[in-house]
Amino acid sequence: MSGATSWSSSESLASWRPGPARDAIVGFLRDRAALATAQRQAVFDNDGTLWCEKPVYPQLAFFVHELRQAVEERPELGDRAEYAALLGNDHAAVGALGLPRIGMALLELFAGWTPEQFAERSRHFLQHAPHPTLGRQFGRAIYRPMLELAEALRAHGFAVAIVSGGGTEFVRAVSRELYGVEPEAVVGSFVGYEYRTGAAGPELVRTATLDGDANEGVAKVLSIQQHLGRRPAFAAGNSAGDRDMLDWAHAAPGPSLALLVDHDDAEREFAYESVAGTFESDERIVDVARSSGWTVASMATDWERVFVEG
Amino acid sequence: MSGATSWSSSESLASWRPGPARDAIVGFLRDRAALATAQRQAVFDNDGTLWCEKPVYPQLAFFVHELRQAVEERPELGDRAEYAALLGNDHAAVGALGLPRIGMALLELFAGWTPEQFAERSRHFLQHAPHPTLGRQFGRAIYRPMLELAEALRAHGFAVAIVSGGGTEFVRAVSRELYGVEPEAVVGSFVGYEYRTGAAGPELVRTATLDGDANEGVAKVLSIQQHLGRRPAFAAGNSAGDRDMLDWAHAAPGPSLALLVDHDDAEREFAYESVAGTFESDERIVDVARSSGWTVASMATDWERVFVEG
Repeated sequence: MSGATSWSSSESLASWRPGPARDAIVGFLRDRAALATAQRQAVFDNDGTLWCEKPVYPQLAFFVHELRQAVEERPELGDRAEYAALLGNDHAAVGALGLPRIGMALLELFAGWTPEQFAERSRHFLQHAPHPTLGRQFGRAIYRPMLELAEALRAHGFAVAIVSGGGTEFVRAVSRELYGVEPEAVVGSFVGYEYRTGAAGPELVRTATLDGDANEGVAKVLSIQQHLGRRPAFAAGNSAGDRDMLDWAHAAPGPSLALLVDHDDAEREFAYESVAGTFESDERIVDVARSSGWTVASMATDWERVFVEG
Repeated sequence: MSGATSWSSSESLASWRPGPARDAIVGFLRDRAALATAQRQAVFDNDGTLWCEKPVYPQLAFFVHELRQAVEERPELGDRAEYAALLGNDHAAVGALGLPRIGMALLELFAGWTPEQFAERSRHFLQHAPHPTLGRQFGRAIYRPMLELAEALRAHGFAVAIVSGGGTEFVRAVSRELYGVEPEAVVGSFVGYEYRTGAAGPELVRTATLDGDANEGVAKVLSIQQHLGRRPAFAAGNSAGDRDMLDWAHAAPGPSLALLVDHDDAEREFAYESVAGTFESDERIVDVARSSGWTVASMATDWERVFVEG
């Protein structure tokens, strides 16, 4: 009896339309018997792969939300160039300053916070703040087909982890609730902490700097080894920052699947392209996917439904 | 009906003799109902807490084993001061050079290895190499009472992780087999990797340097947040390098338990002391434990059996 008979794909991947993407997923799940338990590691990018990243990264929206509150209490903060650009919705200034510099400035808002304080505010934002255009909360702008896929992988013995370029702690705040993923299986860009001891007992508080590199590109491959300790046989992503991770999983020994989510659905979500991320090239990531033998999931074509219930 | 009635301590902690240590464990497990699922994180040190670290750390024994093989092929390696000190069993020279410097030199033996190669050789060593005095393999010189404790914690909904000062990858090589702990729940001192791409496909290989600090002292608290993302309500350790982690768990909100294994059993294992690790102090860690309100597990008094079956 083959392993595939224990699983009815029509139940588990209900939001996936018949087609090559769905066939590739079902085939990979069927072939899993060739993978030892230790090889059954699946990794998902988060922004644009599990939740919507347009027109703004949810984490950036949260940071701006917190910035507005901070400026109410301390108006002088609004004069800082990075903050003024954001608060004025000044796209030119944001572009000139660059998102990395602005992100570092925003980290300062949370310096001195405990992990619990940060998680609580993050969670509250994702649960309640409305997405600007989708008529639902940010925390409900998550892709139903991808949740079904994660669930099918788990049902087939895979450990499912999130490997995000975003902040580890922001994703962890909701990873169990939204994705069924425990905090130790969330790997992202990690803020540094300071451990303080004193009369009130030990305390762990955020600093305003990242501990290590932003978790994009090759850093994702390295952080997978560091945190998860296993080479993934499955990876899903959507952007240039996922290219190395997708290559790494695709070339794993035995059955493997590298899945690229193509944002080609302007009607139900957004239509946009990610370029492949080397300075020598302006390849579209979807072209890289095709030439690399990855599987492309077209949001417009392959997904019967895009989002979870709102 | 209280939560405690679902668990018979006499079944699960069979190697623990009645006494205050066992009472503290049973009491902590009974009180777990006050902890939310997210708070049920348990962390164990490894060397001296889960496996025997005397007369030599198993990882150091493995490194020396590999060094001997390397010197057979490349005799000139034997002239290097750090290696000559080890191979000549020259305690004075080892002491003068210091274990950190020697450890860094030994890391060079494995530069260019893949994670799989390193794991395979580590596993083979731990399975087959005899402990110098205990009449069993290194991989069987593990403490039965601590395995029972880890199992009891899991049975009560705790996630169990290993937070070691030793090499992450060395412990991961056997963590599932010896302890039932998955590789992503092993946090230790982490070697850097290099990601190479080429005609033969992508490859991840070890470098000869650590990525970050050695995982001792405050680094353990920080790495718990980074890797596990939860403050532990339970920690077990045995040495000065565990002090901060034990403090951190002990002061966690709600029921908590910080457990120190006291190596006071020269007959069945080894009798030795760890000093508490600040330059101003030569406190014994067991005295720190008592003044801090941690629970001390005396190997001689509290453990009916020390090791798993040989």
